[in-house]
Amino acid sequence: METLVPAATCYHTRVRVTTERSMQFIDLTDRIEALAARAGIHAGLVNVQTLHTTTAIVVNEHEPLLLADFSALLTRAAPRDASYRHDDMDLRTVNLAPNERPNGHAHCHALLLGSSASLNFADGRLQLGRWQRVFLVELDGPRVREVSVLVLGEAAR
Amino acid sequence: METLVPAATCYHTRVRVTTERSMQFIDLTDRIEALAARAGIHAGLVNVQTLHTTTAIVVNEHEPLLLADFSALLTRAAPRDASYRHDDMDLRTVNLAPNERPNGHAHCHALLLGSSASLNFADGRLQLGRWQRVFLVELDGPRVREVSVLVLGEAAR
Amino acid sequence: METLVPAATCYHTRVRVTTERSMQFIDLTDRIEALAARAGIHAGLVNVQTLHTTTAIVVNEHEPLLLADFSALLTRAAPRDASYRHDDMDLRTVNLAPNERPNGHAHCHALLLGSSASLNFADGRLQLGRWQRVFLVELDGPRVREVSVLVLGEAAR
Repeated sequence: METLVPAATCYHTRVRVTTERSMQFIDLTDRIEALAARAGIHAGLVNVQTLHTTTAIVVNEHEPLLLADFSALLTRAAPRDASYRHDDMDLRTVNLAPNERPNGHAHCHALLLGSSASLNFADGRLQLGRWQRVFLVELDGPRVREVSVLVLGEAAR
Repeated sequence: METLVPAATCYHTRVRVTTERSMQFIDLTDRIEALAARAGIHAGLVNVQTLHTTTAIVVNEHEPLLLADFSALLTRAAPRDASYRHDDMDLRTVNLAPNERPNGHAHCHALLLGSSASLNFADGRLQLGRWQRVFLVELDGPRVREVSVLVLGEAAR
Repeated sequence: METLVPAATCYHTRVRVTTERSMQFIDLTDRIEALAARAGIHAGLVNVQTLHTTTAIVVNEHEPLLLADFSALLTRAAPRDASYRHDDMDLRTVNLAPNERPNGHAHCHALLLGSSASLNFADGRLQLGRWQRVFLVELDGPRVREVSVLVLGEAAR
């Protein structure tokens, strides 16, 4: 007996990234495409989610001067040297980690950018426009970071 | 005959939240984790979506002083007392509700933050980093609000 | 033998939109609802993703004056006539297309708004609040644009 039910497939993994600067855009597109291919789906969703509160996931063009414009935009919206209550260790009473560093600006940047991107997968490939690339955005580096990638869809026959 | 097809599971519910201030971050993480557990998936996606245009869903750290920094950032980007055409009842002709209140600023905040967060679920738990919490952000409260939560994935065996 | 496994369904299509102005909010809600209905799911996710880096997908209210407020907010955050390194053709060395036009501001707007919206579908309909509408946001028009829509869920019986 042949089942006519399309098989659902779910594949999860974590990607580790070592960042090198305080603010940096790391292009994850090739790694995500490889993971989606490994998951063996025909069509479905790929959700790319950072596991940190001072990083973000964005989709835009990989053009180095544009990435500098993005950094300038974020710095204008929440300057690194502005005053953040989160960084006032005389006031803080919760979530205090050893070697806590002032990073209120980085949390603000992350809030504006968002923590995940949901990408469509169809016809055996990630649906991305000509200029679209997927970035982990480091906002308080350098650090070792982890990104969770989940692929959910119909199994390829 | 044993089927080898993993069972897909889809579970939907709405969470009701009564907010208390004009701008407020309400931590929904524990409720979302409980709902995902109830859905009985092994791995999949949890999509948290607000049903209002003057609220948002964000993922960041639950540290009270940081939440005050976030409020200040939003207020700077779109001050409550700035002029919004949406609030000019002499010009408005559509979507007029009884007791309409001036809330152009709150819509602007919601636009910058986003209306949903897609969270990965794997190994029997929500994939969240150490400091990550999921918030409903009230931007025009106090009000009664509703959040839609959908869990989609492979059923646990 | 009757299978008790709910059938997973995945449906993908692209929506083409011809925009008419440099900045424009195009309401896609009716088209997305029709596509979700055609996909024949009972419950699941609908992911709406733009395929361009100078457009965005947002969910908010369709009130013309409010859309003008949104345009003003974006213009304030990244003015069209400010200086963007991406637009300096003396410095640019990568991703140069014929008839490249200055659009650093549009990329910045797209970065702030995001490239996709994940919507919950349950009880046979898209879960949207009373005022929620789904928009493609043109930020560097007029152009012909494409939006990828993926519907993933449990098949309706």
